[in-house]
Amino acid sequence: MKLDELYALLRRRGVLWPTAEIYGGAQGLYDYGPLGAALKHRLERAWTTWFVGRSPDYYLIEPSEIVPEAVVRASGHLENFTDPEITCDACHAAFRAETVLEKVRPSGVDGLSPSQIEEIVREHQVRCPSCGSTALSVPQAFNLMFDLPFGVARSDRAYLLPETAQASYLAFARMWEVGRKALPLGVAVIGRAFRNEIAPRQVLFRMRSFTQAELQIFFDPQAPPGKLGPLASEKVPVLRADRRERGEGSTEFVPAADLVAGGLPEFYVDHLVHMLRFLRDVLGYPAERIRFLEKSEKERAFYNRLQFDAEVHLESLSGYKEVGAVHYRGDYDLRRHSEGSGKDLSVSRGGTERVVPHVLELTFGVDRNLWALADVHLAREGDRVLWRLPSFLAPVSVGVFPLIAKEHRPFAESLARELLASGVDAEYDESSSIGKRYARMDEVGTPFCVTVDGLSVGDGPERGTVTLRSRDSKAQERVPGATLAARLGGALRPPWPSVP
Amino acid sequence: MKLDELYALLRRRGVLWPTAEIYGGAQGLYDYGPLGAALKHRLERAWTTWFVGRSPDYYLIEPSEIVPEAVVRASGHLENFTDPEITCDACHAAFRAETVLEKVRPSGVDGLSPSQIEEIVREHQVRCPSCGSTALSVPQAFNLMFDLPFGVARSDRAYLLPETAQASYLAFARMWEVGRKALPLGVAVIGRAFRNEIAPRQVLFRMRSFTQAELQIFFDPQAPPGKLGPLASEKVPVLRADRRERGEGSTEFVPAADLVAGGLPEFYVDHLVHMLRFLRDVLGYPAERIRFLEKSEKERAFYNRLQFDAEVHLESLSGYKEVGAVHYRGDYDLRRHSEGSGKDLSVSRGGTERVVPHVLELTFGVDRNLWALADVHLAREGDRVLWRLPSFLAPVSVGVFPLIAKEHRPFAESLARELLASGVDAEYDESSSIGKRYARMDEVGTPFCVTVDGLSVGDGPERGTVTLRSRDSKAQERVPGATLAARLGGALRPPWPSVP
Repeated sequence: MKLDELYALLRRRGVLWPTAEIYGGAQGLYDYGPLGAALKHRLERAWTTWFVGRSPDYYLIEPSEIVPEAVVRASGHLENFTDPEITCDACHAAFRAETVLEKVRPSGVDGLSPSQIEEIVREHQVRCPSCGSTALSVPQAFNLMFDLPFGVARSDRAYLLPETAQASYLAFARMWEVGRKALPLGVAVIGRAFRNEIAPRQVLFRMRSFTQAELQIFFDPQAPPGKLGPLASEKVPVLRADRRERGEGSTEFVPAADLVAGGLPEFYVDHLVHMLRFLRDVLGYPAERIRFLEKSEKERAFYNRLQFDAEVHLESLSGYKEVGAVHYRGDYDLRRHSEGSGKDLSVSRGGTERVVPHVLELTFGVDRNLWALADVHLAREGDRVLWRLPSFLAPVSVGVFPLIAKEHRPFAESLARELLASGVDAEYDESSSIGKRYARMDEVGTPFCVTVDGLSVGDGPERGTVTLRSRDSKAQERVPGATLAARLGGALRPPWPSVP
Repeated sequence: MKLDELYALLRRRGVLWPTAEIYGGAQGLYDYGPLGAALKHRLERAWTTWFVGRSPDYYLIEPSEIVPEAVVRASGHLENFTDPEITCDACHAAFRAETVLEKVRPSGVDGLSPSQIEEIVREHQVRCPSCGSTALSVPQAFNLMFDLPFGVARSDRAYLLPETAQASYLAFARMWEVGRKALPLGVAVIGRAFRNEIAPRQVLFRMRSFTQAELQIFFDPQAPPGKLGPLASEKVPVLRADRRERGEGSTEFVPAADLVAGGLPEFYVDHLVHMLRFLRDVLGYPAERIRFLEKSEKERAFYNRLQFDAEVHLESLSGYKEVGAVHYRGDYDLRRHSEGSGKDLSVSRGGTERVVPHVLELTFGVDRNLWALADVHLAREGDRVLWRLPSFLAPVSVGVFPLIAKEHRPFAESLARELLASGVDAEYDESSSIGKRYARMDEVGTPFCVTVDGLSVGDGPERGTVTLRSRDSKAQERVPGATLAARLGGALRPPWPSVP
């Protein structure tokens, strides 16, 4: 579906809508309704099982999203977290410089001063994307962080974290004490990050308040975590930086072992594969729509030694969009916070030496992936609108319908209650025709529906049975209501046997 | 335990710690570590099941915590969300006026101007609680909300919500469309609220960023939701406003039916009882430590028609502390947002009349209750430190220990994995003596521990069995490892049969 159609559908079904909608909305802010909140929660749980559940030494914490100024000074955000903009003197619109200059300068504008950007604008006679005027200005860059008055004096400043990662770095010393005092140590956060974006757009893809799921793995560079083992033959869809620089844009499917042979560290490739399996095997994105785009040394932040962005091709946004990333950040983060706080964050290596742990960062945009789950799995098929969500992610697992409300309500209601008590997310619905009820459930991804009818409550041999209908096959079968929970259990479980 | 001892223990075990601890912390901000995050998550899930699960027309949403200025102007927060303070000209400390004047003016300072408060300070020769000076000033009240620069111009202001309730009111129109278009309609939020408190203190009890769980029930005042039925005889611990005004401070246990006979609306008392049962029967606070304190007309916000604060007596904070509340807010909220947004928020009553729905608000402080769960259930008992958390809330359900790591590790590790795969939160631990491992699990509330020993892995009749030890009784018994998950299932389930 195109952006507008998909967004309208999600809005109408109460998956999400603009914050303060009755006031005309607020740019870059969205509320999740019941279905969106449930899907988001299930997605977060799946992420936690897959990434944090990988080791007993990986932990999920829930930190504050506000930090004092000293933290963002040490992290470098106070100085560098800016995004050059271009404003139009004719129509007063504002744009991200990178977006406006995409064609004339595909390598981006990172590191350029406002006057250097202004020169490019003049040289190429760039026009305002909104009104076409050439009267464009490049103001001094301002910081994208939201700053807050803090404390009684109101003269102190605090900041809403622009990335959850910083909270994990701050927690390292305490987590070292609490845990086994050994590396690798993983500290994960699922939480809000805040950015005062110049041009929020594309609904969930550039928000001012959004949810990140990030795992920071602290490790000794002499013993990095992750061996490929049997996954060495996994084909990883990559677009390497050197090929991009030569203007080649197609994805190659390269066996993991070959990436290692070509010079990438095995632990790093192992985590690319782990991310790939989550996107492909757990979330169900088709392999041919996924790619890992390598950022060149020029493109990535200077502290990132390696960076591959996980991208998914989205019809609604007309191209590949970043939904996660794997960053090898070296010892930058703990070194900066050691200096900033005066607290030694090195740890003992074998009792004699000390080492500042390196960081491997696995990031995952929760909102972006929620959107991708809609883009990839929600489509018109003939006269049906069908959301082929992986069953374990569907907000409603089973729709329970009485064929005739007056006659079949008690049986259907009590069946819905029993399913809920067995941990199956059932939803009772008695409104309108069965066909319309199926259609409503199809739209929100409900994998199963059951209908209670005359046979269910009659005296014949089919007493107690119901019609079970599957979303994907539309196949219907007659099954005993009492065995439903057990029967559906397997189909509603995530596609991994236990902690991977 | 006293405050300092309890806080030190929770901090040492990584339940929570001050945000940016390595930088010396930040007043009023805390991070939850792995155990705290897990406990908080379980508490939130229990709240959701108990309150939101009460009706299929009650929904949990996840809104943005940032709203545009028009919202807080309409809600009245821009004008009124202030907290008078008293500053000391000698030592420059700042205090909440209400706290400093607690003894000389027990009815509080709500509605008083700074000059009226200054008069009281002079009249009673009030001294600075910190340095004892009488050189106290009462500055103009400032707003407790955090305001943000917003948008490209940075001249727009947005606000961090000081209460999650507003997000539910904003969502009403959309939720009406999405739902059955019928009252009562419940819209719940579990989310952050933000207040630039003058004097953050008592750890989780006055934070600058904290988590609220709130359910707003929109209803037609002609058909309010909630009948007492068999719960009419429930004894509700109340301290009524009229008795407080006469200086009587003791809690009365009044049957719910008598509260109704005495003039309180039945739907309101029904929700007091529902809250009581959650605090007492689900969270396990002893009945004699709970009370519902009625706020008098003078004390409550003018739009609240009825307000009872749910309080729990906490040893660590030396008295009763508010952990939740039941507010009957009338039609104030939707009326204000109708006026502010220009959108008619009334709904049809029987096709002919229109009605602005009234609001019954059930609030619950997640952080405060997490603290209360520690205060009430964590204690020294002889030489043990024991957290008698309700089993279903414990972050770790089962500790799994090999008696001798080298010999029993494979069996124990695989048992822990199997338990995890069955949905039981097991934690493997092979460090130090069994006694110390028991003690560590006792401290964090783990209800069960199993030990794998020589018999478990031997060739005798006890092969495959393990020692199961219960936290509360210290009783030990020999059970087959393979049946553990099924055996513990019941004991780990919340104390309600299904959705209440």
